[in-house]
Order: sequence, then C-alpha cells, then structure tokens
Amino acid sequence: MSVYQKIKQEAYVCNMQLPKLGLVLFTFGNVSVVDRERSVFAIKPSGVPYEDLSPEKMVIVDFDGNVIEGELRPSSDTLTHAVLYKNWVEIGGIVHTHSTYGTAWAQAQRDIPIFGTTHADHLTTDIPCAPPMADDMIEGDYEYQTGFQIMNHFTDNGLDYKEVEMVLVGNHAPFTWGKDGHKAVYNSAVLETVAQMALLTEQVNPNAPRLKDSLIKKHFERKHGPDSYYGQS
Amino acid sequence: MSVYQKIKQEAYVCNMQLPKLGLVLFTFGNVSVVDRERSVFAIKPSGVPYEDLSPEKMVIVDFDGNVIEGELRPSSDTLTHAVLYKNWVEIGGIVHTHSTYGTAWAQAQRDIPIFGTTHADHLTTDIPCAPPMADDMIEGDYEYQTGFQIMNHFTDNGLDYKEVEMVLVGNHAPFTWGKDGHKAVYNSAVLETVAQMALLTEQVNPNAPRLKDSLIKKHFERKHGPDSYYGQS
Amino acid sequence: MSVYQKIKQEAYVCNMQLPKLGLVLFTFGNVSVVDRERSVFAIKPSGVPYEDLSPEKMVIVDFDGNVIEGELRPSSDTLTHAVLYKNWVEIGGIVHTHSTYGTAWAQAQRDIPIFGTTHADHLTTDIPCAPPMADDMIEGDYEYQTGFQIMNHFTDNGLDYKEVEMVLVGNHAPFTWGKDGHKAVYNSAVLETVAQMALLTEQVNPNAPRLKDSLIKKHFERKHGPDSYYGQS
Amino acid sequence: MSVYQKIKQEAYVCNMQLPKLGLVLFTFGNVSVVDRERSVFAIKPSGVPYEDLSPEKMVIVDFDGNVIEGELRPSSDTLTHAVLYKNWVEIGGIVHTHSTYGTAWAQAQRDIPIFGTTHADHLTTDIPCAPPMADDMIEGDYEYQTGFQIMNHFTDNGLDYKEVEMVLVGNHAPFTWGKDGHKAVYNSAVLETVAQMALLTEQVNPNAPRLKDSLIKKHFERKHGPDSYYGQS
Repeated sequence: MSVYQKIKQEAYVCNMQLPKLGLVLFTFGNVSVVDRERSVFAIKPSGVPYEDLSPEKMVIVDFDGNVIEGELRPSSDTLTHAVLYKNWVEIGGIVHTHSTYGTAWAQAQRDIPIFGTTHADHLTTDIPCAPPMADDMIEGDYEYQTGFQIMNHFTDNGLDYKEVEMVLVGNHAPFTWGKDGHKAVYNSAVLETVAQMALLTEQVNPNAPRLKDSLIKKHFERKHGPDSYYGQS
Repeated sequence: MSVYQKIKQEAYVCNMQLPKLGLVLFTFGNVSVVDRERSVFAIKPSGVPYEDLSPEKMVIVDFDGNVIEGELRPSSDTLTHAVLYKNWVEIGGIVHTHSTYGTAWAQAQRDIPIFGTTHADHLTTDIPCAPPMADDMIEGDYEYQTGFQIMNHFTDNGLDYKEVEMVLVGNHAPFTWGKDGHKAVYNSAVLETVAQMALLTEQVNPNAPRLKDSLIKKHFERKHGPDSYYGQS
Repeated sequence: MSVYQKIKQEAYVCNMQLPKLGLVLFTFGNVSVVDRERSVFAIKPSGVPYEDLSPEKMVIVDFDGNVIEGELRPSSDTLTHAVLYKNWVEIGGIVHTHSTYGTAWAQAQRDIPIFGTTHADHLTTDIPCAPPMADDMIEGDYEYQTGFQIMNHFTDNGLDYKEVEMVLVGNHAPFTWGKDGHKAVYNSAVLETVAQMALLTEQVNPNAPRLKDSLIKKHFERKHGPDSYYGQS
Repeated sequence: MSVYQKIKQEAYVCNMQLPKLGLVLFTFGNVSVVDRERSVFAIKPSGVPYEDLSPEKMVIVDFDGNVIEGELRPSSDTLTHAVLYKNWVEIGGIVHTHSTYGTAWAQAQRDIPIFGTTHADHLTTDIPCAPPMADDMIEGDYEYQTGFQIMNHFTDNGLDYKEVEMVLVGNHAPFTWGKDGHKAVYNSAVLETVAQMALLTEQVNPNAPRLKDSLIKKHFERKHGPDSYYGQS
C-alpha cells in the first residue's frame, strides 16, 4: 500500500463532496490534501469525471509541482495548490471550484460584503477578491503565478490566511483552504451560500449596510478563539 | 427511558425536517420542543451534523438555560429559545435557520411585505424584522438578549406572538415558532417561500402594491379562527 | 367499487405530479378531474399532505359544490373549480398551485409577456392576469366569485378558454386547465417555467421586445391546429 | 440488428442526459448523432417523453430530412439538424434545448458576454445570439431556415463552428454541437451555467468588464490546441 494512502483517501472523499454539495458541474473543481511530513499533497487527476474517481487515482505531487506517484496527469491547477502549500505552512487542504455565485462575484471583481452573521460566523472581513493578474503573470507560468496573486493580495491587504480561509480570484473563481480537506470543502460551501445571500441582500435593499463591528466580533468569537462555545469542542 | 423521551423524539424528527426542506446548510439551524408540565425543552446539540443526530442526542434544558439531561452541549442559540419559552407561554416549538431568502431579508433589514394570499394564509401583517441589537446587548449575554430583542419588537409594534409566528432578526436570520415543533418547522418553510416570492414580486414589478385588507382578512380567516374551512378540522 | 373510480384515480395521479414537478410546498395546490356524463368532479381533500393521499380519499363534488361522495372535506378552492366546470363545458381538468414564479407575477399584477417560442408553443397571447377581486366579491362567496373573476376577465379581453388554458389571479396565484387532468398539470409546469424565463429575460434586457406575430403564429401552429407536426399525432 | 445501431444507441444515451442535467422540461429538447459514412443521423422522436425512450425509438434521417428508418415521426426540429450536418461537415452531434438561462438570453436577444475563465475554458468569444428570423424565412420552411439563420450568423460575424460550438437563436433558444453527441450535450450544460453566471455577474456589478484578451487566450489554450494540458489527453 502506498505511504500516501491516507491523503489519497481523504482527497478522494473530499473531491466526492463537491458534486454532492452542488459546487461543481462536470470536472470544474478539485480538492487537494497535504502530507506535511513528506511535503507532498494528493490532488484530483485532471479532467476525470467524479464518478470515475477512486483513492488510487489521486496524484501525489511535491511543492514544486513534480509528480511523485500516480499514473494520471494532476489537475491543471496543481501549481496553484503547490505554491500555497509551500508558503502558507499551516494549510492542510485546498479547494478550487467554479461554484455559481462565488464565480459571479469573482467575475464582477468585487469583494463580498459582510452583511450578516452567517458570514461573521466564519470570517470577520469581506471575502476578498484578488484583482485579475497582470499580463506577464498570465503569459508566464499561469497557475504558479495564480498562487502568488492570491498571496500578494493577502499581504497587500493585511489579511491572515489562518483567519480568512477563502478568496476570489478576479475574473476566475473561488479558492478556499483549511486545516484539512474537509474544512476546505466546508469553506467552499460556506462561500457559495454567503455569496448567494449577499447578492440577494443587495437585491432586497441596494443600501443594505455592512454588519456592525460588535456583531462581527461576537459571532466570530462564538465559533472561534479561546472563549468559543459553538460545537462540542 | 427518559421522562423526556416524547419531546426528544419530536425534537429529533423536527430537526431532521430542516435539511429535507432545504432550510439548512451543514448545521446552520436548530429546532426545540417544549414540555410545559416540566418546564424544559429538548434542543439540538451544538454543531452536530444532522446525519449523526438521534433522539438520544437531544439536550434537555430548563427555561434559564441549565442543562437538565444530555451529554452534549446544547445549541449555541439555546438561551434565545429559553427566553421565548419562559415569556411566551403558549409556544410549543421554536425553529432557527439561516435559510437563504429569509436571511437575505434579515440582512437587508426590511419587513417582508404582504404581497399575496400565500402570505395572508399564514399571517395578516408583514413579516416583522427586528432591528439589529444595541452594542451593549451584543456584548452582554448575546443569545439571551436576542430573545428580548424579539419580544420587545413585538411589544413595540403591537404584534401578538400567537398570531405572528415568525420574525427576522436584523443582520442575522429568521426565528419561527408554533404550537408544537412541527408547526414551527412548517412556519420556517412558509417564511422561506414567502420571502422568495416577495423578492421576485418586487423584481417583476418594483411598484407592486401590498395586498388589500379585504383579501388579507378573507384568506387568514379561511385557515384560522372560528369560521375557518381549510383542512379537515 | 365507486362509479367515480376512474376520475378518482386520475385526480390522485395528477395531484401526486404537483410535488414531483416542484410546483407545491406542503398542501399549497390541488387538481380536479371531471366526469362530464355524471356532472361531477373528483378533487383533492383539503389540507391533506400529498404523501397521505390515495385515490379513495379524493372527494366527489357536483357543479354547485355539493359533496356527492367521500368522507373528507374537499379543497377550500372547490367552488372555483365547480364554477369553471359548469360554465366552461369543454374543460376536463383544473389545477391550482402557488408555484413560485407564477405567484410572483400574480402578486406583481402583470400579464406575463410572450417573449419567446417556449411561450408560443403553448399560447399566442400574454398569460393573462385577472385583477384582484372587488371587495364585495371577496366578502361574499369568495371561491365561487374567483371563478367568475376568471371568466369575466376572459370575456372582457376576448380570450377563449380553449386556446388560453391558464390564468393568474391578481395577488393570488395561477389556475390552469385542459382537456384532462394531465394536460392541466402540464400547463401548470409550462406556466411556471415560462414565468421564470420571462423574469430572467427582463433582467438580461429590460427592453426585450415581445415575440413578433409571425413567430407566434408559426410556433403555435407547429403544435396545434390542422397542420401541426409536433408529436406522434 | 440495424446498421444504425451505434448512432441510435449514442443518441438514446445522450438524449437521456438532458433531463439528468436539468436542461429540459417535459420534451423540450432533442439530441441527434450523425453517421458520416452513411450520411444519416439518429434523432429523438417528436413529443415522446424521455422516460419512454429506447434506442429502438430513435429515428434515422438523411441530410435532406427524409426518414430512412424508424416508425415514429422525428423531432419537429429535424430539418435544422439536417441543414447543419450537411453544411458543417465536421459536426458529430447536435443538441437543442430550451434550458432556462440560455433561453432567457435568447429571448433578450443578447450575446452572452465573456466575463470569466469558465467561459474562456470553452470558447474565446461571446456566445453569439443570431437575430430572430425574417418573416419570409419563418413562413417558409421554418426549421430548414433556422439552420441557415445560424450558419449565416456565423459567416457574417467571422465565427468558426469548430471553435464556437454553441449559439442562441433570438427569441427562441440554444443550439449546441460538437465532435459527437456527448460533446454536444456537454456544451449545452456549459452554455446554461455560463448563461446563469453572466446574468448574476451583471447583477453583482452592472459595469463588470469583459475578460481581457490575455486571460481568454490562456484559458482556452489550457484546454484546446497543441499545447493544451487539461485532462488526460
């Protein structure tokens, strides 16, 4: 049995969650799960329908994008995952989808405003939208540069990837991450529902105000931090 | 067998209705059912996925929020339920969700206008939206104060909780209630569909008029009151 | 076996189509099927959940609204069905729903414009929206008067119920009919999808023009009339 | 066994994908698959519900619209398929649906703007919307002329059917094609999701810019052309 069996299995299970949660059409998405000890991650093979996946088909890749194990070509977005794992050292899983509402906000090139507690339960800021990449980044090593575009946007805006586990890439679509693959998938579903609610909120009231700071703080701390009291700890 | 078996069973069945009716993503919702004789209620444990629930996992809590029976931590919204049960003495069940359209109206901080008979079949007023809470209420005992925010809004606006069995909490999401858990769940689904219809109505016609009084009266009385003739009585 | 077994069976099967087609929440809809020889129709009992229905539970009613057979109370909308059967003598089945998009247009009090061939495949005019009823009609025999409101709107606007098999009742919701129960249910689903497409069309282009006459004529005649060539004749 | 068994089987499987992908209501769509050696195609019979289809019921038609094999009448859109197969000699399959969002853009008579990479993964231009047909074309051989309307629009706008595998027919609905039936169905689903995302994008930001050329080029070449690296080649 492969020494990577554990992450292959988790990557498989997490990839299979995407169609169940309505986050992908055909093969428009991928999940990876990292093994920090071995500095590799397991990722979906490129263009393979979800119904044909199995744990064995997951591809093992190192943080420079080299295939370490597996007979299939890894996701075309592999280098973006690699860059993020290499630089954001506490990430355990990454998800990329073209989910409908998240992608609409990315195409609109707008941050998703924090309008309510559903959003504040998960992060205390707007969901950031990184600008479309410069032409030289696109024409160079595109997927590799996409990782840097995300990281640079976080740095430029003082965002911490451990607190804000999701981003829109302008004109493209969402990326999310988390301590493991399951949390990253969870965050993709949260992003999609928050994106839908935010659009509907603006349709109900074009002047809807952002959530006030006291509520942001309260709801985030209910679920996160030393005094959290949500869940079974 | 627990003396609370009956409400645990009903709370379990009602909680399981929420995902079936499309009213929750993950664990974003909870149902409680009261035992008026014993002055306790059964409520969903916090953060436990619906597929892992069982009647035995429901938590029994008194009207001050003390856990009376159960090994799991109750829903983080438990104190809101407790306050409402303590003060609104004819309520038998309470539901809280972050259903998509209801939450959008809550985030937009608008009452849902009564536009048609689907709405009037269930209540004769707009669906009220309580304003976001004051900072001192948020920073204090937040969930406890949420219950008072709801009750105060009803008092200030001359609303009767026995006639209007639903509310939006501004920036947050809907709460509904009823004579038992099933009716409270029913009301959550009604609120969600009425919320969607109201948004679509304004999109079809930004000047759509509210329903006139004669139709409000007629439809409500078809289903409610001494001369009702809907259902099998 | 009841002499009304045939229409009870068809009414049952047709009623069960409503939740399958996503046209009803809970019990917000009903189908009836007529027996022209006996001048009665079978209709859903009031307020009974679809999952509890059976052919035996359908209620047999005459054209004045008297229950002829059955132990349950018939739909609260029964008199509307009765009036339409009595006066529109070629109708074989009637459906009433509160389907989401159809109801939104009814609440907005607008005819649904004929924007494309999906619409023209089924009727050559806008889908008419009858105005909300006058107060004296509402306060009188409401459901009975609803039937007249529909018929009067057709008369006043030169519409033929054999060509236009659907209507919105202002502030209320859709009614559809057809040569039998199946066609009436089919028309309810067509109305809902055309209602959604029309709203989306206006959102894509607020100045979208109505379909031109030559296309209306062509598409309607493909499916209807002596030279139709759609289906297996 | 019919010499056309292979295309009948593929046409059957592809037609059955339409309801599974949510692209059709009732019988509002059809797929055909061509046999280039024999210059015939297999197409859905007209008006037959998907649940009643079988490979044997597919109708074999030549490029002038003559039925070669089969007892049922072919789809009323058959001549449009025939014209496209006859003139666009590298097409292997064609799909026509009235999918909700695609039809809304067709009714709105607008090209679908290329707003993001989901779109650019599949084509490098806006999704073209052919204008509604002239009255003499409609009153003549309508379905035959629909094929010419599509082809003329491509010629007039310098579009290549091998690169742009989809079109909206103004006031009507989408047509898509591809190297085989499966690719044509895939394109119908892509068109529908891109149509939905484009509408939502404009709702989030009415001034959303079109995707810039460098990103269009990059994403299209990831999936297509000599240096593509998407999928398992």
